[in-house]
Amino acid sequence: MRLSRAQENDRVLLVSPGNRRYLLLLRSGRRFHTNKGIIEHDALIGQPLGRSVTTHLGHTFLVLRPSLHDLLMNVKRVSQIIYPKDIGLILLKLDAVHGRRIIEAGTGSGALTLALAHAVRPEGMVYSYEVREEMLRTARRNLEEAGVEDSVTLHQRDIAEGFVERDVDALFLDVREPWDYMEQTCQALADGGCFGALLPTTNQVSIQLAAMAHHPFMAIEVLELMLRQYKPVPQRLRPDDHMIGHTGYLIFARKIAPSSDPIQE
Amino acid sequence: MRLSRAQENDRVLLVSPGNRRYLLLLRSGRRFHTNKGIIEHDALIGQPLGRSVTTHLGHTFLVLRPSLHDLLMNVKRVSQIIYPKDIGLILLKLDAVHGRRIIEAGTGSGALTLALAHAVRPEGMVYSYEVREEMLRTARRNLEEAGVEDSVTLHQRDIAEGFVERDVDALFLDVREPWDYMEQTCQALADGGCFGALLPTTNQVSIQLAAMAHHPFMAIEVLELMLRQYKPVPQRLRPDDHMIGHTGYLIFARKIAPSSDPIQE
Amino acid sequence: MRLSRAQENDRVLLVSPGNRRYLLLLRSGRRFHTNKGIIEHDALIGQPLGRSVTTHLGHTFLVLRPSLHDLLMNVKRVSQIIYPKDIGLILLKLDAVHGRRIIEAGTGSGALTLALAHAVRPEGMVYSYEVREEMLRTARRNLEEAGVEDSVTLHQRDIAEGFVERDVDALFLDVREPWDYMEQTCQALADGGCFGALLPTTNQVSIQLAAMAHHPFMAIEVLELMLRQYKPVPQRLRPDDHMIGHTGYLIFARKIAPSSDPIQE
Amino acid sequence: MRLSRAQENDRVLLVSPGNRRYLLLLRSGRRFHTNKGIIEHDALIGQPLGRSVTTHLGHTFLVLRPSLHDLLMNVKRVSQIIYPKDIGLILLKLDAVHGRRIIEAGTGSGALTLALAHAVRPEGMVYSYEVREEMLRTARRNLEEAGVEDSVTLHQRDIAEGFVERDVDALFLDVREPWDYMEQTCQALADGGCFGALLPTTNQVSIQLAAMAHHPFMAIEVLELMLRQYKPVPQRLRPDDHMIGHTGYLIFARKIAPSSDPIQE
Repeated sequence: MRLSRAQENDRVLLVSPGNRRYLLLLRSGRRFHTNKGIIEHDALIGQPLGRSVTTHLGHTFLVLRPSLHDLLMNVKRVSQIIYPKDIGLILLKLDAVHGRRIIEAGTGSGALTLALAHAVRPEGMVYSYEVREEMLRTARRNLEEAGVEDSVTLHQRDIAEGFVERDVDALFLDVREPWDYMEQTCQALADGGCFGALLPTTNQVSIQLAAMAHHPFMAIEVLELMLRQYKPVPQRLRPDDHMIGHTGYLIFARKIAPSSDPIQE
Repeated sequence: MRLSRAQENDRVLLVSPGNRRYLLLLRSGRRFHTNKGIIEHDALIGQPLGRSVTTHLGHTFLVLRPSLHDLLMNVKRVSQIIYPKDIGLILLKLDAVHGRRIIEAGTGSGALTLALAHAVRPEGMVYSYEVREEMLRTARRNLEEAGVEDSVTLHQRDIAEGFVERDVDALFLDVREPWDYMEQTCQALADGGCFGALLPTTNQVSIQLAAMAHHPFMAIEVLELMLRQYKPVPQRLRPDDHMIGHTGYLIFARKIAPSSDPIQE
Repeated sequence: MRLSRAQENDRVLLVSPGNRRYLLLLRSGRRFHTNKGIIEHDALIGQPLGRSVTTHLGHTFLVLRPSLHDLLMNVKRVSQIIYPKDIGLILLKLDAVHGRRIIEAGTGSGALTLALAHAVRPEGMVYSYEVREEMLRTARRNLEEAGVEDSVTLHQRDIAEGFVERDVDALFLDVREPWDYMEQTCQALADGGCFGALLPTTNQVSIQLAAMAHHPFMAIEVLELMLRQYKPVPQRLRPDDHMIGHTGYLIFARKIAPSSDPIQE
Repeated sequence: MRLSRAQENDRVLLVSPGNRRYLLLLRSGRRFHTNKGIIEHDALIGQPLGRSVTTHLGHTFLVLRPSLHDLLMNVKRVSQIIYPKDIGLILLKLDAVHGRRIIEAGTGSGALTLALAHAVRPEGMVYSYEVREEMLRTARRNLEEAGVEDSVTLHQRDIAEGFVERDVDALFLDVREPWDYMEQTCQALADGGCFGALLPTTNQVSIQLAAMAHHPFMAIEVLELMLRQYKPVPQRLRPDDHMIGHTGYLIFARKIAPSSDPIQE
């Protein structure tokens, strides 16, 4: 979609006077209800973006093309999503650039899937695994609404049975017990490929690190990102009173050829 | 480059036994000297990646294709670079996806330029402005070595004279006094376009926020990211003793149409 | 109070099954109402501490002697209190030990006052200034209930008129515009004495630092403390989802003799 | 010591032009050598504090009475000390106020011992356990130089054999495997008493929490404090480039009477 004008079936972002954000799929005839009043979709369709619109109660909302960040924060969710602060770093660490082939499990609501798909487009491909029907349905819808479904292959399959692809450039696990799938991971990932995982607890990180020691992984890193937001008031600049205290620990590593000489670390 | 084998003129990443990382441009006949011994480039050229190589002193190094993260951390620098933890979030906030047209100033050593170029490839374009000759030379070399020079237009030009492009999707300022260029920014950025800036001090953030209040910006955010690294030892998991305490504050906003009704915030 | 048994007029801490904490002043005949049921004060008076008590609905609460930390977190408040994480460091930085004479303004709800009084007891004295009647009343009550009123001199006085005491060991300002009182501060504080201030915004910190440059202060520090709490679950150890993002910036310095040779920093 | 004048055998704090801090025990005839020149102790003895002194090379140093914070940061160390940021909170959480009886193990270099002694003076007592001869010698010297040796009872004893005291108000463990001493801890600590421990790794925290579940502990908390220092420059306020990334995790709890009804958490 070009910046110029909003079309039916476009997704637009509405920003309220209080800076709340709503993602809207434009459909002629529909209405968007907020506690500040109603906005008719038809008042947006065909209009230029980057402007304000007024509710029937006289409150002005900003109408924007959603950024990738907006999409990630506002995907329909049936599970905990991976946060953009983490996704940004994951993209760089996994080397998720144009043309790459990347495996991800589980799909969940598809937030990371969506970001990976954007990053490898138009020639790359994301292979995303999920066993739960409901998750897959939600993820598929999120990917379609974002228009990146052609860059994603969704597999409804238990990864204990192995991944279908071979020699992929990167592989990311957002599952409860990633250590159970190290064999399958090493079979699918090319030598030198990028491995990543997200884990909420320190115990999981320890178990995962111990499991990785029995497989050909090197350059292992564990890290976390803390995002601190500030009140954007020039004369009273200060951090917000509250912040997210934890999303998860990130593990990154490189899979090496099993036949390599051991590295003496 | 495919993962399979390193070729002459490829960049490879060497990881030392102590987890130090070196970026190497492969040239037949050259030697790489470390305090762990010498590695001949010819011992790497034509060899598969994801394997170890041994120095003449018997130490093993890992040979990898550099990820985007590795490239960013290891670009040749003549100035402070923007860190990957910040770049990851900037990409998402600027909506730097396939096909976008994005302005950046100043180019500096070209780390953010490189990441933006990767993100908008192959059809998008990054327009990067820099006045200092030496910076431009370094940045051009970094972009060429990464193979993304076709996705970047470098301008040696003082942005006080305005940007050449119009209606760009996003614009990022990494300059000392971004508040001096708000007029030029609003001329170049499309309505609804994404604005970003990186500033090291709180005083700069306050001045910048005050300046933005006189221009059509909305959905303004100020934030910072703290990256904490852990020792990847399963039985003794703990954060590193030292961490980077500060890189900079990030400001993000959306430029709206000047004719918009005021938003009552 | 000895640990042994709770007496009438003692303050006890009740800890709920969900780890919520309530401070209670024991008075015969009274009842404590919670959403888990009622506890009669008479069921606590005369009983040993460190035990559980059962509500009429059968829920067990823990009955404890409140620690200084518990008292600080649970003082009656008519204003934002200074948090224990900050108070702990303030005590060390101000050298608040047995026998010291320390000025503080404003008193507020008296949380810092209470901690300072405990620290300088029995021979030291805290001189606390406050103009607002309601604050003083609340603070006095909090100090009396904690039994440290003999170590505090409360002044209802505008500090613009100067402090009454001279040559105090330390002086702490928790007021909106501390820079207005640097003259008065330097008159009251002994040469070499410890100065401290708490300020919520970066702008205030900058103004305060600029003001201090015109007065004989040295060894100036600005810092902040971030407290991160973890879920105390052995098999799933991880930080809480949410945390306090900001309480305030702390400034510390030493006042030197005005006649000192300038330090070339 | 009063603020007025430095005497022989007093400890003074010297602050260099570059804000480096040195703790000095004044002895007539001695000289203090720095890379900025020499200061004669006799030039300080008998002089008022809070002033500057000039080295033979013409550099000015500030002469101050050390605060408790200065003492803690500058104790002679033969082991890792507990940092003041953590000590401040430990004092509040352990309820270390005037008159309390507190056990600590191990003594180490005596930094926490020193702070606890200051807090419980003049009537309280700190009982500090250490097996290593060299540690005890260093700690004793640090306590004597700080003048608080009368408030500390040092035990050279393996705590596996149990603590000598009974019914203490608080007990803090800074040992490698605190979980091995829970039986001894519960014997020494009064019902309702405050327990604390400092542990560097997440694995230790998990093991300790698991051990505490088999003993009468309630109101268990795990937390960590991050200290961020800022450059105190009014026009360029910003955090320091580097910070301490980790000191340790703090555990706090209350020991309850073993006969208490179980709390259903």
